Amino acid sequence: MTSQHLLWPRGFSAAGVYSGIKTRPTADVGLLVCDTTAVGAAVFTTNKVCAAPVHVGRRHVASGRLRGVVNSGNANACTGKQGQADALEMCRLTADRIGCRPSEILPSSTGIIGHHLPMPKIRRGIAAAAAALGRTAHHAMLFCDAILTTDTCRKCAAAEVKIGGKTVRIAGVCKGSGMIGPRLDSNHATLLAYLTTDAQVTAPDLRELLMSASDHSFNAVTVCILASGQSGADLHAPAAARTFGAALEQVCQDLARQIAADGEGATKIVTIQVSGAKNEAAAKAIARAIANSPLVKCAMNGNDPNWGRIVSAAGMAGVPFDPQKCVLTLAGTVVFKSGQPVQFNAAAVSRTLNAKEVRVRLDCGLGRHATTVWTCDLSKQYVTINADYHT
Amino acid sequence: MTSQHLLWPRGFSAAGVYSGIKTRPTADVGLLVCDTTAVGAAVFTTNKVCAAPVHVGRRHVASGRLRGVVNSGNANACTGKQGQADALEMCRLTADRIGCRPSEILPSSTGIIGHHLPMPKIRRGIAAAAAALGRTAHHAMLFCDAILTTDTCRKCAAAEVKIGGKTVRIAGVCKGSGMIGPRLDSNHATLLAYLTTDAQVTAPDLRELLMSASDHSFNAVTVCILASGQSGADLHAPAAARTFGAALEQVCQDLARQIAADGEGATKIVTIQVSGAKNEAAAKAIARAIANSPLVKCAMNGNDPNWGRIVSAAGMAGVPFDPQKCVLTLAGTVVFKSGQPVQFNAAAVSRTLNAKEVRVRLDCGLGRHATTVWTCDLSKQYVTINADYHT
Repeated sequence: MTSQHLLWPRGFSAAGVYSGIKTRPTADVGLLVCDTTAVGAAVFTTNKVCAAPVHVGRRHVASGRLRGVVNSGNANACTGKQGQADALEMCRLTADRIGCRPSEILPSSTGIIGHHLPMPKIRRGIAAAAAALGRTAHHAMLFCDAILTTDTCRKCAAAEVKIGGKTVRIAGVCKGSGMIGPRLDSNHATLLAYLTTDAQVTAPDLRELLMSASDHSFNAVTVCILASGQSGADLHAPAAARTFGAALEQVCQDLARQIAADGEGATKIVTIQVSGAKNEAAAKAIARAIANSPLVKCAMNGNDPNWGRIVSAAGMAGVPFDPQKCVLTLAGTVVFKSGQPVQFNAAAVSRTLNAKEVRVRLDCGLGRHATTVWTCDLSKQYVTINADYHT
Repeated sequence: MTSQHLLWPRGFSAAGVYSGIKTRPTADVGLLVCDTTAVGAAVFTTNKVCAAPVHVGRRHVASGRLRGVVNSGNANACTGKQGQADALEMCRLTADRIGCRPSEILPSSTGIIGHHLPMPKIRRGIAAAAAALGRTAHHAMLFCDAILTTDTCRKCAAAEVKIGGKTVRIAGVCKGSGMIGPRLDSNHATLLAYLTTDAQVTAPDLRELLMSASDHSFNAVTVCILASGQSGADLHAPAAARTFGAALEQVCQDLARQIAADGEGATKIVTIQVSGAKNEAAAKAIARAIANSPLVKCAMNGNDPNWGRIVSAAGMAGVPFDPQKCVLTLAGTVVFKSGQPVQFNAAAVSRTLNAKEVRVRLDCGLGRHATTVWTCDLSKQYVTINADYHT
């Protein structure tokens, strides 16, 4: 982890401690705390099956004021009233230690569904984490470790912009692996992201900026951002908000890319760039249909330039699409154009597909709207992980 | 194949011949012909990327009169004007041999996208098939073989009903394997079904009956039905149409089940029964979300009673769903109810899941609408097949 970590924006401390919850001895209770009450915003899953911390989190962030975030345990989903009580107790314990109201704490957790939280361990963990809060890269790293579940690596990103002569920093960490698509994430409730910034911003503005950035990167169970205001740079002016929004989007997209790269069993990251779509919704639906197609993902795993699966997935997106007008480029080679296959060297393209990063570009030829999503291939290892991960 | 084959309804003949198109020496050109002009109906894929035979087929079936069906070659999709000309030529060649107009022939084919049809072989094949037409179970079987691609077995179903004292027969064959879901089929353009009946029916009635039956079973690239009328039983009366419709639906559902069982790499068939949904669209969307979830399919592969993935998939369907009100039953054991996990013996349920057929029942507790879909598990073998099947 470089100097550009989660605590790089001014005004935050963090901790991650091991409390015997995870089977391997790595941090499993994480706290992220702002020095003073921060402006907070969060975007939550649209899944109708919400975990208890999502219900509690929605209520707590509604005021636009947060002091901190606590993460531990399993999904705490489908756990009834006990689950709600446990999520609330996590907030109360944290608030007691750092000196704020329980409603200023956002709880969050992921993992297996339908199991109650191991509260004795979590109680001990929150006490230990509160005592271990600090401001160094090491503290940021321990928080990052605490939120991970099946991830094979940490995911961190940061950006810095000048606003009104002042330096504003944004940083983020996230956890989540698995089949990544703008909806599959939420579907399977594995993605959490935490962002910090020292910008000065109102809660409604921050929420709008966060919604836009996450809309252009990933949908998570919970994405939250805390703004300490300590940069002194105000985002009220539209130009300032735009500058900040672009940087925030860049941080979120960087995180989304890292999640795709760490997809369960993934051997490569696939960037799907859709352009020329009739409208923004169509661009997204087409990109999503391609990114989530098991057949496309298998072809990527086999380095197979099977472009028919990509065009067919686009055709099934339920939005305007015309194969006569689209141009499909696979790792730099045009393979389909004007409704006709294009002659290309399949062996050579297959060799280009045999890479850690592959780019699929589909220009729809119907309009001016574009989007990018990141996905990964579907490997035998994905099946091993998800067939053998027993409840 | 029993006596209840595709030629069991009166008034049809069929053939399947090998013409050097498939790599293994099995029938690859198929003809199905009615003795006289039949009443015909067909339902086609909603994918915007239609194969040439789908475009031609739509036009030809519009009159409601068909004499026969020809199947051969690859998908003939994304093949431009040449593809259209080739599909039309298949109709013309068939029509010349059996003595009808080209517009009375429905062309169809599946396979790889973006390759032109091997017309010299297809021309020879159609001539040979027309000369080989016959009425026995063996002829029906050869037609069935001709339509198969990656299928590991034939799929046939039939039913018989009494209408106005007369015996009406319905039979069907289909091809298709792969990830089966009511939409994924169409998405990946692999499913074709051909039905015959000797009922006497008008084209609009037949079309309506076929749409309803396929709606409750599978969406295919093309499902078509030819009615010879030779039973003399008229479907005009509503009761007659209902009796026939129920039998047709049963045949289609039987075929859909067989397709799921032959899913690429499938080790089991999973029947998803959704009940208590708020409306029909919700029932379907929930069943589809479960059936298409890679995580649910992997859990089924691993005999893992991971019910959280099922409830979570349902929650993401984008339709009314409330985990507090649903009851989930896995292979006969209630595992989730009233928003709370239910204590159950995971090892015992896992053993019940280790079967060729598994039933998942989700009662939503929100209404009276129900649906059933069939899917299969997601295995490593699926990835092998689809990562290694090279263009």
